[in-house]
Amino acid sequence: MTPPDSGVAPPPDRTVVENAQLALLLEVTGTPKPGNVDRAHDYDDLRFEHFVAGGVGARRGLGLAADGERLGRAFERAVAGMSQQEAGNTQFGALLVLVPLVRAAAEGDLSGSHAGELARETTVADTADFFRAFEHVDVAVDDPPEGMDALDVRRGVDAVPAIEERNVTLYDVMIESADIDGIAREWTGEFERSVEAAERLLELDGSVPDRTARVFLELLAEEPDTFVATQHDRETAVQTTEQAAVALAGEADPWTLANELVAEGINPGTTADLTAAALFVALERGLTI
Amino acid sequence: MTPPDSGVAPPPDRTVVENAQLALLLEVTGTPKPGNVDRAHDYDDLRFEHFVAGGVGARRGLGLAADGERLGRAFERAVAGMSQQEAGNTQFGALLVLVPLVRAAAEGDLSGSHAGELARETTVADTADFFRAFEHVDVAVDDPPEGMDALDVRRGVDAVPAIEERNVTLYDVMIESADIDGIAREWTGEFERSVEAAERLLELDGSVPDRTARVFLELLAEEPDTFVATQHDRETAVQTTEQAAVALAGEADPWTLANELVAEGINPGTTADLTAAALFVALERGLTI
Repeated sequence: MTPPDSGVAPPPDRTVVENAQLALLLEVTGTPKPGNVDRAHDYDDLRFEHFVAGGVGARRGLGLAADGERLGRAFERAVAGMSQQEAGNTQFGALLVLVPLVRAAAEGDLSGSHAGELARETTVADTADFFRAFEHVDVAVDDPPEGMDALDVRRGVDAVPAIEERNVTLYDVMIESADIDGIAREWTGEFERSVEAAERLLELDGSVPDRTARVFLELLAEEPDTFVATQHDRETAVQTTEQAAVALAGEADPWTLANELVAEGINPGTTADLTAAALFVALERGLTI
Repeated sequence: MTPPDSGVAPPPDRTVVENAQLALLLEVTGTPKPGNVDRAHDYDDLRFEHFVAGGVGARRGLGLAADGERLGRAFERAVAGMSQQEAGNTQFGALLVLVPLVRAAAEGDLSGSHAGELARETTVADTADFFRAFEHVDVAVDDPPEGMDALDVRRGVDAVPAIEERNVTLYDVMIESADIDGIAREWTGEFERSVEAAERLLELDGSVPDRTARVFLELLAEEPDTFVATQHDRETAVQTTEQAAVALAGEADPWTLANELVAEGINPGTTADLTAAALFVALERGLTI
């Protein structure tokens, strides 16, 4: 409609980094996502506004990922920026799964196989960055595998000499963690669940927050959440997945489940992280708001 | 706690632009803000996620304001970026009041007087930019003052030749609009209400979204909202202000008022814009999330 000689430049398309930031914000907007902080649910010390501030603060680190900086470094800076709010860890796992996807998109090939290739190309320097990221926030993690005490992420930068001595790449770390961590499984499995969930977001009807809530529930019903398994135990995680499946089948109200899980402090954070990754991929593939 | 030789750079402080973006997002997070879209309220075609996408898209234009670009141009680009979601106008007024404040903060003097000085220094080029911004979104505006038809913002870029011929600065436009537009009054009145509301945000207790809702209600109870006056009529705006005063005095439930106003389509958008400006100033002055 605007005449070509009007001096009005067209609106800019969203960049890859803006889509990643928007994905973080839309993830927390979808409701009900049972057990998560979302548009309608807070924990006392972990609230919606902390995720908003986390999403604002993470952008510069995500920008480094798009600009070709080492993935570990981009992740560490994104976590540092995210941490500038009072709740601590809001989107650590979401940033970990997003960083290779953002780089893949910036390189013009947002496929799971290309993101998986980028994951495989990480080096020991990325591992040191990854451990440094744990200095910015407290993250719930399990004990390391047997014989791997020296590489316990809870040691933060103190573990860096051992990492360098053993030449452990970040991909190696993810391989070691894949059986207990759903984000590590994305890194080592070509981001399969993130990409599949993105396709679901694109094929569903309704508003993006409603689709987000639906896809979260589908993911949760499909596999036990590894963050719940870490924070509570495997049995709780399996039970939560069963509850999600019942809600998904329409045999229970997801709003009731959401209130119950929040009251019990059962927060399927890994499933939320995958949902954020799926939103990013879907936005890059044309999901409109 | 992190040892100095650990290779861990400290987390980055939020930049001026990040605080402006966060302010836009926190404004819509505060609830209940009677009549507005907020964390708990949507209109059918103007929903929370549109404000989130608007806040993401506006950032680059806000960055131009911080970097010294002409204020009108920075505003036009911010509006263009904001417009990249399906609801059209979400934060036009908020961006208009934010742009001089962002520049003032970037220059290291976020006082109302300095922002007012920047407003007075605008030129006819800023006015042309301002009119171009109306090409990106439909904005509810009143008829122009008598004899000013040639400068009707609804003419968009078609008005630019007349603006240039008459050498109308953006500050002149704001002077002409100050009696019917609360944002223009900020521009011509050294951003007095924005700065005062920022001080209220800093002195109140409670979470930032709760303080935001409180300050919105105080602002609404203080002066009729000019967006409501434009979209409906002066009487409706005065009545809404009276209802806000009753709620503020604890004699009515603001949640009930919020539901009533949304049902009637009475959206005090100018008051929301001032709230966003106040959040920005408060964040710059140390409000923590």
